[in-house]
Amino acid sequence: MSRPAHRRPEYHKINKDLFVLTYGALVAQLCKDYEKDEDVNKYLDTMGYGIGTRLVEDFLARSCVRRCHSYSEIADIIAQVAFKMYLGITPSVTCNNASRNEFSLILDKNPLVEFVEELPTGRSSLCYCNLLCGIIRGALEMVHLAADVTFLQDRLKGDRVTEIGITFLKKLDEKKYRRKK
Amino acid sequence: MSRPAHRRPEYHKINKDLFVLTYGALVAQLCKDYEKDEDVNKYLDTMGYGIGTRLVEDFLARSCVRRCHSYSEIADIIAQVAFKMYLGITPSVTCNNASRNEFSLILDKNPLVEFVEELPTGRSSLCYCNLLCGIIRGALEMVHLAADVTFLQDRLKGDRVTEIGITFLKKLDEKKYRRKK
Repeated sequence: MSRPAHRRPEYHKINKDLFVLTYGALVAQLCKDYEKDEDVNKYLDTMGYGIGTRLVEDFLARSCVRRCHSYSEIADIIAQVAFKMYLGITPSVTCNNASRNEFSLILDKNPLVEFVEELPTGRSSLCYCNLLCGIIRGALEMVHLAADVTFLQDRLKGDRVTEIGITFLKKLDEKKYRRKK
Repeated sequence: MSRPAHRRPEYHKINKDLFVLTYGALVAQLCKDYEKDEDVNKYLDTMGYGIGTRLVEDFLARSCVRRCHSYSEIADIIAQVAFKMYLGITPSVTCNNASRNEFSLILDKNPLVEFVEELPTGRSSLCYCNLLCGIIRGALEMVHLAADVTFLQDRLKGDRVTEIGITFLKKLDEKKYRRKK
């Protein structure tokens, strides 16, 4: 997953509102295209997956993240490094089972819904931010970490917080996903 | 165009790559939805228009831009303040006619196409970044400045630079678009 230094792009930031409104336009377009919320959710997840597979290389190059020894460490890196780097927020992380392969990212604040007061009419099953799940899934898969990533709670649906669940599907094998140096 | 101080959101930045890849997904979706490039271009412009009408208020609040006395000043503000704030780039500005109502923004670099090597096959008339034209048009209209905004050159189409043309359509009337204080 390393990239030569000369290919490393400059680290740029852009205005969040532009992104958030463009994302809103994307979701609106998908809602226009697909009648069923499940189809919109699936499409957002698939799009996100593609984005995640492309983002991960830059993420590893920029973050200088080193080898992780547990799923718990990986979940922490997603929350504390990746979310911070890409969305400017740091979700809190909880581990949800004794096997320590199920985690929740709790988002007190979600920049993606800043201009969204409620789900569109008749779209009560829409996972508005499902792109995020796809991105996490895609990025993890590129480092050989198969995972299920889904929204468990969503403030847009009346829940108190927004919660993304990550379930790592395989026994951890350090050799497979550690970063080349 | 003023907004109460308590509504003024924190000024946040997010990672550019996430935006650029999400924008790519939006364009890909529209290409899937609309067979004709002209329809995709139109749709991107319309989406951008909606985004521009929403962004302008924050732009005015954040930029602290004061009343402009000429179209030339307005074009400079779009290039030097708005593009810098939202996309992190500063296009150069040229005035294209003696009436001084036609301007070009020349983009040597265009972050939106950073992951795009060429236009998709069979999409030679696609204005990939047409969202930008819509945003500028929408934002200007909200401050009572009707304008035509189109791509005049595009590096994705083999041109040497990317050039956005802005033609202001009405005689300048200072009172109409100056910012309330």
